[in-house]
Amino acid sequence: MKTICIDLGGTRAKAGIIENGEIALYSVIPSHSQIPFEEVILNLEELINDLMEQSGSPDLSGIGIAIPGVVNVHTNRLQSVNQKFCGAVGFDFTGWSQERWGLPLVLENDARAALYGEWQFGSGRSYKNICLMTFGTGIGSACVLDEKMLYGGNNQAGILGGHFTVDYNGDLCNCGNRGCVEALASSWKLKELAATDQSEPDFKILFELYRQGNPKARSLAEKYMGIWSAGIVNMIHAYDPELFILHGGIMNSADIILPIIQEYIDKYAWISWGDIKIATSSSVDKIALLGMHHKLSLNQ
Amino acid sequence: MKTICIDLGGTRAKAGIIENGEIALYSVIPSHSQIPFEEVILNLEELINDLMEQSGSPDLSGIGIAIPGVVNVHTNRLQSVNQKFCGAVGFDFTGWSQERWGLPLVLENDARAALYGEWQFGSGRSYKNICLMTFGTGIGSACVLDEKMLYGGNNQAGILGGHFTVDYNGDLCNCGNRGCVEALASSWKLKELAATDQSEPDFKILFELYRQGNPKARSLAEKYMGIWSAGIVNMIHAYDPELFILHGGIMNSADIILPIIQEYIDKYAWISWGDIKIATSSSVDKIALLGMHHKLSLNQ
Repeated sequence: MKTICIDLGGTRAKAGIIENGEIALYSVIPSHSQIPFEEVILNLEELINDLMEQSGSPDLSGIGIAIPGVVNVHTNRLQSVNQKFCGAVGFDFTGWSQERWGLPLVLENDARAALYGEWQFGSGRSYKNICLMTFGTGIGSACVLDEKMLYGGNNQAGILGGHFTVDYNGDLCNCGNRGCVEALASSWKLKELAATDQSEPDFKILFELYRQGNPKARSLAEKYMGIWSAGIVNMIHAYDPELFILHGGIMNSADIILPIIQEYIDKYAWISWGDIKIATSSSVDKIALLGMHHKLSLNQ
Repeated sequence: MKTICIDLGGTRAKAGIIENGEIALYSVIPSHSQIPFEEVILNLEELINDLMEQSGSPDLSGIGIAIPGVVNVHTNRLQSVNQKFCGAVGFDFTGWSQERWGLPLVLENDARAALYGEWQFGSGRSYKNICLMTFGTGIGSACVLDEKMLYGGNNQAGILGGHFTVDYNGDLCNCGNRGCVEALASSWKLKELAATDQSEPDFKILFELYRQGNPKARSLAEKYMGIWSAGIVNMIHAYDPELFILHGGIMNSADIILPIIQEYIDKYAWISWGDIKIATSSSVDKIALLGMHHKLSLNQ
């Protein structure tokens, strides 16, 4: 089967035509998560039309879209968001796709899409119990439990790992909760680094400065890695996985991050059955597209 | 069917003969969680023999034991404990029951036993997604997800809600983790109250002093209720339940505790689909016995 899948991230929308688990065409555009959603939709239409035109063949089985937020997978609509794509809540993605291209559409939370991809095609193959945490503009998560993607009673289970409180006296989060991992150590929190003269600091810059020995960056990165680790241990305690996949652009600095997280888990996690495996994403930019392709195949 | 079920708590062992979901005989003895486990087992034997003798009828279908700790439900053995009944790890409960009475035995984590009871006979009837948290010597939890008790890959999922970090800089917990709910606000932590001249402070005394307006007790109880609430919101974010059951002796002070927890959840939890129901246990002392009875009936 052949599909068009889009991973609508907070900064970039990555898209591709996928054929039998292989990415045949790939394209990236800015996602503009803060503009009116009607404009985002127009951009997506252009992106999809471009891909269709480039591929030359109209024999598509469907469209898959991964998006940050709580997705109601029964209605194919966004149920709730946290700051990004606020105008998308309630938007009728199915109707839109039917009207424009006469194609079925599947909407899914972006971290779940990445985990579907890792589980079927990437670092998670052959595992039955997997957690994934993705570090970007926000912090997302997803969970495969007993060979099933976890959804919970109302679509929220597994995806709020970035919104477990790790400091009950900590800062308020965009989500409304207090002291979430995301409130304390996500890239939108990196304004703390602005004092080092970086006007738009991100994790890439943070870890570059860390490598250069910049004391402020080292202290900040160490604090962040401690908070991420506490959040990861909370996910391990919640879901009891055999594999934990770390996803997101920060994994370009996996050589620094992984040993610190591994040491923290060894020291603090209550794991009474053996050793949990920690892995990085097999492809930060593309795995969610493969995940959406897989999810579309389930609906065939 | 008729069973003997025991809820082996940190302080007391509650036991009963259960017939078709009704408690026919009920007995309580001190549990002595810190003595050698061989002596605990001798006490349990006496307890079981006494109940058998009192009931007069030998037609039992099995024995159910609820115990704190990580229970391997495949082998019927304790996989890991946290301070209580340390000598029980690896003990062959099945062999013991077969040898003494020729009866099948089922071992289960105590919070899961309570939740089985609430779900089948108590506050959780008709719900499909339920979390339970129990506040006692330690803090336990359990979770029913999509009409199934949650176990995870290695028996640990759902039961470590007391060991989610809510203060990543907080005190070390008995379990080895840092800043767990249990490390910050469980009854073994109540030595903080000892300064108010209570030699063996517990939650009952804490909330009695709170009602009397004792300033130290008020401030401590408010701190504890804040920490419990943060832990409960973490469970809600992890498991997406429609019902949250609060269990344990502290629920004698539910008139104080419930409104504060409810207000915290209303303010801080990310629930995008409606209102979660908060309930108290239908019977703190007996519901786990009914839960074990139900679990035995599943194995028939």
